[in-house]
Amino acid sequence: MSQTFSVIGTRPVRHDGVDKVTGRALYGADFQAAGLLHGRVLRSPHAHAKIKKVDVSKALALPGVEAVVTSADFPDPGNKMANLGEGAINLAHLSSNCLARGKVRYRGQAVAAVAAINGHVAEEACKLIQIEYEVLPCVTDVVKAMEPGAPILHDDLVTESMSESNGEKKPTNVAKHLQYKLGDPDKGFKEAAIVIEKSFNTATVHQGYIEPHNATALWNADGTVTIWCSTQGAFTVRAQVAELLALPIAKIKVVPMEIGGGFGGKIRVYLEPVAAILSKKCGKPVKVLMDRAACFEATGPTPGSFIKVKVGADKNGKLVAAEAYLAYEAGAFPGSPIWAGCVCIFSCYDIPNLLINGYDVCVNKPATSAYRAPGATNAAMAMETVVDEICQKLKIDPLDFRIKNAAKEGSRRADGPAFPKIGMIETVQAAKKHPHYTAPLAKGTKTAFKRGRGVAAGFWFNIGLKSCVTASVNGDGSVSLVEGSTDIGGTRTSVAMQLAEALGIPVTDVKPSVADTDAVGYTDVTGGSRVTYATGWAAFEAAKDIQRQMIEKAAAIWKVSADDLVYERGVVTSKSDASKKLTFKEIAAEAQKHGSVIVGRASVDPPWPGGAFAVHIVDVEVDPETGKVAILRYTSVQDCGRAIHPSYVEGQIQGGTVQGIGWALNEEYVYNDKGAMTNASFLDYRMPTALDLPMIDAVIVEVPDPLHPYGVRGVGEVPIVPPCGAIANAIHAAVGVRMDVLPMSPPKVCKAISAKK
Amino acid sequence: MSQTFSVIGTRPVRHDGVDKVTGRALYGADFQAAGLLHGRVLRSPHAHAKIKKVDVSKALALPGVEAVVTSADFPDPGNKMANLGEGAINLAHLSSNCLARGKVRYRGQAVAAVAAINGHVAEEACKLIQIEYEVLPCVTDVVKAMEPGAPILHDDLVTESMSESNGEKKPTNVAKHLQYKLGDPDKGFKEAAIVIEKSFNTATVHQGYIEPHNATALWNADGTVTIWCSTQGAFTVRAQVAELLALPIAKIKVVPMEIGGGFGGKIRVYLEPVAAILSKKCGKPVKVLMDRAACFEATGPTPGSFIKVKVGADKNGKLVAAEAYLAYEAGAFPGSPIWAGCVCIFSCYDIPNLLINGYDVCVNKPATSAYRAPGATNAAMAMETVVDEICQKLKIDPLDFRIKNAAKEGSRRADGPAFPKIGMIETVQAAKKHPHYTAPLAKGTKTAFKRGRGVAAGFWFNIGLKSCVTASVNGDGSVSLVEGSTDIGGTRTSVAMQLAEALGIPVTDVKPSVADTDAVGYTDVTGGSRVTYATGWAAFEAAKDIQRQMIEKAAAIWKVSADDLVYERGVVTSKSDASKKLTFKEIAAEAQKHGSVIVGRASVDPPWPGGAFAVHIVDVEVDPETGKVAILRYTSVQDCGRAIHPSYVEGQIQGGTVQGIGWALNEEYVYNDKGAMTNASFLDYRMPTALDLPMIDAVIVEVPDPLHPYGVRGVGEVPIVPPCGAIANAIHAAVGVRMDVLPMSPPKVCKAISAKK
Repeated sequence: MSQTFSVIGTRPVRHDGVDKVTGRALYGADFQAAGLLHGRVLRSPHAHAKIKKVDVSKALALPGVEAVVTSADFPDPGNKMANLGEGAINLAHLSSNCLARGKVRYRGQAVAAVAAINGHVAEEACKLIQIEYEVLPCVTDVVKAMEPGAPILHDDLVTESMSESNGEKKPTNVAKHLQYKLGDPDKGFKEAAIVIEKSFNTATVHQGYIEPHNATALWNADGTVTIWCSTQGAFTVRAQVAELLALPIAKIKVVPMEIGGGFGGKIRVYLEPVAAILSKKCGKPVKVLMDRAACFEATGPTPGSFIKVKVGADKNGKLVAAEAYLAYEAGAFPGSPIWAGCVCIFSCYDIPNLLINGYDVCVNKPATSAYRAPGATNAAMAMETVVDEICQKLKIDPLDFRIKNAAKEGSRRADGPAFPKIGMIETVQAAKKHPHYTAPLAKGTKTAFKRGRGVAAGFWFNIGLKSCVTASVNGDGSVSLVEGSTDIGGTRTSVAMQLAEALGIPVTDVKPSVADTDAVGYTDVTGGSRVTYATGWAAFEAAKDIQRQMIEKAAAIWKVSADDLVYERGVVTSKSDASKKLTFKEIAAEAQKHGSVIVGRASVDPPWPGGAFAVHIVDVEVDPETGKVAILRYTSVQDCGRAIHPSYVEGQIQGGTVQGIGWALNEEYVYNDKGAMTNASFLDYRMPTALDLPMIDAVIVEVPDPLHPYGVRGVGEVPIVPPCGAIANAIHAAVGVRMDVLPMSPPKVCKAISAKK
Repeated sequence: MSQTFSVIGTRPVRHDGVDKVTGRALYGADFQAAGLLHGRVLRSPHAHAKIKKVDVSKALALPGVEAVVTSADFPDPGNKMANLGEGAINLAHLSSNCLARGKVRYRGQAVAAVAAINGHVAEEACKLIQIEYEVLPCVTDVVKAMEPGAPILHDDLVTESMSESNGEKKPTNVAKHLQYKLGDPDKGFKEAAIVIEKSFNTATVHQGYIEPHNATALWNADGTVTIWCSTQGAFTVRAQVAELLALPIAKIKVVPMEIGGGFGGKIRVYLEPVAAILSKKCGKPVKVLMDRAACFEATGPTPGSFIKVKVGADKNGKLVAAEAYLAYEAGAFPGSPIWAGCVCIFSCYDIPNLLINGYDVCVNKPATSAYRAPGATNAAMAMETVVDEICQKLKIDPLDFRIKNAAKEGSRRADGPAFPKIGMIETVQAAKKHPHYTAPLAKGTKTAFKRGRGVAAGFWFNIGLKSCVTASVNGDGSVSLVEGSTDIGGTRTSVAMQLAEALGIPVTDVKPSVADTDAVGYTDVTGGSRVTYATGWAAFEAAKDIQRQMIEKAAAIWKVSADDLVYERGVVTSKSDASKKLTFKEIAAEAQKHGSVIVGRASVDPPWPGGAFAVHIVDVEVDPETGKVAILRYTSVQDCGRAIHPSYVEGQIQGGTVQGIGWALNEEYVYNDKGAMTNASFLDYRMPTALDLPMIDAVIVEVPDPLHPYGVRGVGEVPIVPPCGAIANAIHAAVGVRMDVLPMSPPKVCKAISAKK
């Protein structure tokens, strides 16, 4: 992989930058159309209730109201499972999550929707919809939900492995039980010189994207449906809406507007099918927007969890066995990222003996969704604090310990596969060498405040999946690149850079566009850190397609065999006649003048990359009196495979780290005993802002992925994984308490300090 | 070419049909954007004048005005020639036609433009722009413009062949002199038993598209420009705007909105660069619309002309020699379709000896543009009435005469090339067999009215040029087809049908989209009857690309060599194992499930087709008192090569015929002596409506073009060519006068009848 690059590794201005800073970029809410109606959604005030009766007649009678819909307007999806972008999903659940059928299972669940001439009328109409509920007891805690006698969310949810355990087939809130085993854990623990076992509770947290969910739909008179929305995957929206509304996908066009953050939360549909059915009823385009409270209460956060970890090491600090029990809140419908939690919890390490039990548990909270390395952060918090305790007990430097135990090429992941070449060791080594790690803790001015440093590692597997691009060569040698990946983090540019690198042209000559579902081949979601990896790979292949055509053009111009020609760094040359040279621009101009122009295309479904590793170092200051934890210094070291655009890689690392810090210190869904979230606003749900944090020092390590033509691994998710563990370890270093709860907010830190005293 | 078809020749509903009949389709004027400003253009009140001084200060000071532009805001394009979609064009002329520089050369020429918060303010501001003109004498007639001492439009226009003829290099209005010669005309005429020579005057006529010109532009803060407009060629707009504004094409994106008719008149830019410069000045999107008067006065009509024809035949009715002199009004800037007039005038016939002189002449009228077989209708009017007179004199049936003299494979066109397989003979034969031709003239009720039947033929060459498509196969076996050809006459469907035919799938499974210039490969204008021909060919090639990938997928599934597999009518089968069969839908589903999906692409630049021939039969009734001519029955017979969608072919034939009838009987630009058009409204510029005409009987003859994979020739233009000649011949049959002027409006017919008496 000793490649030299002209474009990769540079930091060009992003193609969509000016549009975004000047406000020209069009997000979903910016959509306009003649005759546009405005939709509002009526949401359940109860966390758990049967819907006895719905009467929309008064709402329909309100002047200005053009349509009212309930789940009765959706086709009954039956009990079909479909893989629509977030793994297999039960369509009845997805449908009921868009408009509740029969029962509401969380406060805020959509029950009905109205389209009217403006939003005020639509809101007024929502208040006129009369719904008779039979309120049921609710459960919002994963541990309680698993207890016998807990309120049951789904009467038809009978999980084989669970019913076996209690001897009869009765409904349960446990939707799934996963178990992974490697080696002989019992034997492993017997060999251990030290075994640490701890339990953890982590709160539900939200992605907190700035842009609320939105969808506009037009159900046309010819039965075709166009949807404009902010989504991580236009094709995924197409597939979900097709299933929910029983339409062929060819009848649906999804136009992805710009997206103001998603982090996994904008893959599942909420408003899209509702807007479509409203539009079908009134024959006009209907725009539906969520407010912030709806985003919190009724979209998919990442699960709260209960985790037990037991880890054993020998006296030399070699890990010999580990066990984990992970119970993740699915929310109202099955589907927590429990699988990912199980896969990630131990994957930084090469541990010969493992046992992992994972449980996906329904509770009366919104159905969880993906959130940046979903499921991995909770798990890492548990493992990394236990590792820290082992290091402390064995008096081993925590980075040396991680180097000694690092997963490497050939190490087995808990779920089976062996790693290819990965960069865990190189990442820990880079952290160890970093001035932050070798510098003494800075002294504070307030002597009552305590300071400490912590480290933690994290793993996320990243994904591959399908991507398509087309690339048309213009007469001036510029290239119009069309991709199906919605651009959240600068991927127009990171994909364009790989096309430019492969063609040997400047990236400023590439003009990327994100297309709608009718205008580009099927492309999976922008998620799983996959776009720069997979769509970039597609761009590389499209460049190869262009190269072949450029060679053919040159062969025709020179009247020689194409076999004699070679394309290198933007120039076609003859192997047998060094005087023959044609540049990319020259061939492009010739193609524009004579004969057909050059159009490249590629469709890829690459193998999944080796995965990403991160090691974070954090210095904190704890006010023992209030329990407030301040971040003094933060360094995020990460193996990026190959950093295509280092600034965007750094941005991803910084963004992911900050979200992890928020999760660590402040963020949580606070519920009352009626199952109502009591802090559903940005004021009360406290995410860190630029004022709360120092600059995050992002350190890029490059261990190229051996599969990818440019060594890309994907970078977006793993930086959220280590912060909770790193900060917990830093708090322990500062005040000597081992936190076993998230968030480590002032009252919880105070309580822990008090308990220690 | 004995092919059997599943899709070609059927009449499916057009994909964009419902959108267009329900009003959902978005035309240029429908464009909306936040902060949109409205532009208006100030136009010259004089037909010919120097611009002495422009003062925009009062306009700029009007509240609500955000920008005022004049030609001073355009870069000076110098004297560069460029081929930008309508043949080589002088950029200084194109620029001055958008905003006059130094001089105005026709009434209505744009001089300045304003962007304001609404159209009313913009109009008000236009009135406040103070322009000092020095009015010059004008000339609006082609013959007068060629006379010595005529007002000269371009002081720098010195045409070599013309200055030679008057012995010195002085400016002239004649921009070009073409001459074509075949055989020995003098010798030919000596062999003739009969020679007829006549002169003709034809008026300027307008395409009369329903939708006026429009353009919205946003000059973004990053220097990129987006233009939304109704155009026949988005890439052509891109190229023209790039040249006029001295921008790289990569900085410009043109989004083609739906187009409400063009007929050749929406190829050249008028408002697009003006809207762009206005937007650059104010930083907001600016929409500029023309009203109907501006469309008439300031866009490109088709030229008025003066034509002399001399034709000789031997006593058996074999054409032996022909001469033509064609002087076409270019309007204010060089560029009439004189070349096409010269090429078409004699091309229905196989004439051994030819001499053609053509002149492109500037006059103080709007610069002419293409209009459906541009230049051919004027020419055919002359030739076809002369042929009719020869038939009359020799007492030969006019269709027998045309069969005897028909151009056929190997016949030479006046401009040189020999015809490949063409369908002139088959078309005349079909006309001769048609019940209309054999039926006696129906008797009228008003005995004073006279009835007559006429026939005429017409030729148009049609064109090839560049087209690109991409076609993505969806998991359900539907195909998303992306093309760069704006759809005027149903080409989404005629192109989709060729893709469907080649893939062996239903056309309803193909979903065509017209893309912007960033989203598809370079594609030439929708014009020259080329889209179904060339873009259809591209669709065929994209289907071949898909077939190859389908075979590869099937080979991978069966683990056999791709060489053993064949794709036929939507099924991949094994040559060696008849039990192996996979349908298109099955492979599409498999590709969606496992591995990469299938994306086809093609870029073509096919040779020009053989050309199209039409023969029209018309019955008229003439009121000798008023000179009014009524069309009683009309049959248009045409070789279409292969009729992909017969209904749209018939629609093109009917539409072209009706435009030809309007040109024959009513339409003309009426000028006063100051060079002002006095009938610039649909009320006064009388186009035929459905109430004026009987159903046009369209008869499709199919002589497949041997080059095209499906035998397509192009059908849109040639039906406008014969009507003027056919109606003139029918008038002669009715009242015995030979009309030598267009339009044959009541006063002119009256005058001819009086002159005969």
